[in-house]
Parts: sequence; C-alpha cells; structure tokens
Amino acid sequence: MSSKRPVILITNDDGITSPGIRALVEAVKDLGQVIVVAPDSPQSGMGHAITIGDPLRLNKVDMFDGIDSWQCSGTPADCVKLARDKILHAKPDLCLSGINHGANHSINVIYSGTMSAAMEAAIEGVPSIGISSLDYKFEADFTVAKMVVRDLAGRMLAAPMPEHLLLNVNIPITTPATFKGVKICRQAYAKWAEEFEHRVDPRGKDYYWMTGKFINMDKEAGTDVEALKEGYASVVPIRIDFTDMEMKKWLEQQWQF
Amino acid sequence: MSSKRPVILITNDDGITSPGIRALVEAVKDLGQVIVVAPDSPQSGMGHAITIGDPLRLNKVDMFDGIDSWQCSGTPADCVKLARDKILHAKPDLCLSGINHGANHSINVIYSGTMSAAMEAAIEGVPSIGISSLDYKFEADFTVAKMVVRDLAGRMLAAPMPEHLLLNVNIPITTPATFKGVKICRQAYAKWAEEFEHRVDPRGKDYYWMTGKFINMDKEAGTDVEALKEGYASVVPIRIDFTDMEMKKWLEQQWQF
Repeated sequence: MSSKRPVILITNDDGITSPGIRALVEAVKDLGQVIVVAPDSPQSGMGHAITIGDPLRLNKVDMFDGIDSWQCSGTPADCVKLARDKILHAKPDLCLSGINHGANHSINVIYSGTMSAAMEAAIEGVPSIGISSLDYKFEADFTVAKMVVRDLAGRMLAAPMPEHLLLNVNIPITTPATFKGVKICRQAYAKWAEEFEHRVDPRGKDYYWMTGKFINMDKEAGTDVEALKEGYASVVPIRIDFTDMEMKKWLEQQWQF
Repeated sequence: MSSKRPVILITNDDGITSPGIRALVEAVKDLGQVIVVAPDSPQSGMGHAITIGDPLRLNKVDMFDGIDSWQCSGTPADCVKLARDKILHAKPDLCLSGINHGANHSINVIYSGTMSAAMEAAIEGVPSIGISSLDYKFEADFTVAKMVVRDLAGRMLAAPMPEHLLLNVNIPITTPATFKGVKICRQAYAKWAEEFEHRVDPRGKDYYWMTGKFINMDKEAGTDVEALKEGYASVVPIRIDFTDMEMKKWLEQQWQF
C-alpha cells in the first residue's frame, strides 16, 4: 500500500441520518480518508434508479465528527456519480454502502438501493461492498456488521483486487459471542410472493399497499440464505455483466435468423 | 400450443401514453389475449425501483381499441407485480416491455425501467422481452422493432422455453429495406462518463443536471453495441442470478476466514 491514505467513499440508501451509515463510518474511519455522500432521505427499494429529469442538490453537512460529508437529494447511484465528478474529481480507492437496516440477500440484490450504489462504483472499477444487516430496526446492533466490514475493507485495501470486485454482504442477527464467521456464497434463487392489500380512500377510490412473503425456492447448498440461517455472514460476489452465457448458447442452437 | 389463447402482459417505462407501447400492442395483439398495465407517467431511469412507502393506484383505461388496459401510479416493476396479483390472478404466458424510446444496450440494462419490468416477470418464470429502439424521439419509426418483437414473441409462445428466459432487445435506427437482421449478443462493457452541469437557482443555491457521455470500453467481438453499429438488432439473454462464479472461486482461493 502506498503511503498516501486510501480514499473510502461511503454512502447508503436509508439516508444520511440513519444509524447504519454512522456505524459504517465508525468501523472504517481509521483505514483511510473517509468521505460520506449519502441521500438526504430514505431511498429503500430504489433499485438502480438515477435522476435524469430533476436537478440534484448537494449540501455539505457536519454530522460525523469532522469527516467530510455531503447530503444529496438523489438516489444512492446518483450519490456515487456526484461524489466522483463534483467532490473527489477522481475515483475513490474503495466504496462502501450501508450498513442497511434490513436484508439484501438473494433476489433482493435487484431491488436494493444499497447494492446499486456499490454496483455504480464497481462499474467504474472501484472495489465495492454493499453491507446489510438482517435486523431492520432503527436501533439494530451493528457490532458484528462493523467487525465484518472492517475486515473485508482491510483486505480490499491491502492488495490490488480483481477488476469490478463487488460484494453483497449480509449479516445475521447475532452477537460477537454467537457469530459463526464469514462464508463466500452464491445468490439463492428466491422471490417475493406479493399480496397487495386493497383499501379504499376517504373519497371512495381504490388504492393498494405492497406487502409480500419472501419465499426461498433454492434448496441446494452454498446459498447466502442458507449461510445466514446457520448464523454466518454471507458474502456474494456480484457481476456487472448480466449476460446469460448458457442461455446465449441455447438460443444460438435453437433459433435461426 | 393449447387451444386457449396465451395471455401476453404488456408494460413499459415511458408511460401508457407513449407511442412505443402502442406500437408494441399493435405488433402482437393477434398472437394472444393482450393485457396492458403501464405507468401513468414516464419512469425512465427508474432501474428496478419498487414502491414500498406509498400506496399504489390502478385505474382501468380505454386507450387501445378494446384491449383491457390499466394505468398504474407505480414503477414498471410495480406494474408487473400488480398485474399478476390484482388483474390476472395468475402468471401471464409472456411479458413484453417497451418499445422504449431510447437504447437499453450494454450497461444501460442496469438503469433501465423497461428491463426491470421484464426482469420482474422473468423472476416469476414468465418468458420476457424488454425491447428498445435507439431512436429516442417521440415520433420514432417502430416498423422494424414491431417486426422483430413479433418474430421473437411468436417463437417464445410456440414451444416451452428454458426457465427464466429474459431477452434485452435493442433495435438500430433503420428501415425494413436497410435492416440487417437479428444477432444473439453479449452485453458490452460500457459506461457513462458523467459530467454534472452546475447551475445556480434564482435564490442563489447550487444545483446539478446529470449529463454524460456513453463510452464503449469493449473492443472484443460479439457485443450488442457492435451488432447495433452494424445495423443488426441485438438480443442479449439476461441472468437473474447475479453471482460472479469466477470471482467466487478467486475469493475462496485468496481469502481465509
């Protein structure tokens, strides 16, 4: 590692005032020069949304004991883009997103604002981690999450990493005494069985609330859902190339144009 | 194929009033029972956003000459979820999203509301296509796009398809006379170099507009960007499992926990 302190960009999707991002800053602040650029309001379920049709605001705040911090009116992906272009004027050495209050394992990676920020940095070639706790409560205990992300961040800063390294890390509800350790996993095939709750507003018009039941359809070994159930933290490396090469072969064999 | 007419769910991200979704309905309406459930306003750049914190509205409209149609206050992914749970009460046989006014090739699959709707259906095991034209204009000519999506939809309804088949289809700016045909491709590695334009509002406060330059970093053969440049329509099969299996092997070899 060079003598220059590495630049660590921190963001999240629960918003800059959430306890999770504070825990993340505390966990890694002595590993490098930490910069926080995070949404000014909660952005959960924003997927990889970006803001094209509206202007973006970026305001410097002082919320993390002297660590340079900005709140942004946009999405998590917007935060990473703006940080690079308007604050850092260069790529950071590492991007950390979280700690999310709530799980982002299995299929949830697709809907996750936490992961979209990390993915945005990974596209740029910045090693990145999205980290989430299964404890969605405001007052969640992030002790184990802080241990794990500090360990992983240290490894990623200690040596050159493969290009586009992007980790989806989830932490079970556990304590240092009961924590089983870290497991490298694959994404479980799971889905949400949505049941929209129908209501009628005071003007007699219908509306719906999205609710849903999480269903793990994946009974094979090695998934993130399985590891979390056993008390391990799950680490799933995520692709930025979404091409399905097996399906591509099938199509090339089956379909003539 | 059974004698029952297949159910084709159509949605998009430009909104139900866009010419692109009308062209899509016209292209396939005789292939099955078409149902339209689409956003009531433009949703471009929404990625895989879903609406958790707000209620959703769903209103029946009559915009497509007798074809059952609803407009929804939510995102493209919300439309697919609501259609399945509250309108169809079952899985459709095919889901088509588009025709998007603007490209969704290469890395744009990540930001695309068009693709998020198709991906939502694919997670459910519904064969799906997201289709986009490189011509982003309101008055774009969708003649070739209609030919291509009709061809692909017919193939996908004619025989059982592999599970989670999901196609990202892009159409170059072309005419039936100059169109080169369809190519099965892989996703190009490309990115957006963002340059945020700084302005000051009438109250003296800073704001930023996202602008950006598309950069294709992928000079190897077989990409969607290359096919489109040559005048072909690109078809990229997309994964719903984002696990990077090569990176997983690397991590297992390099990192001990």
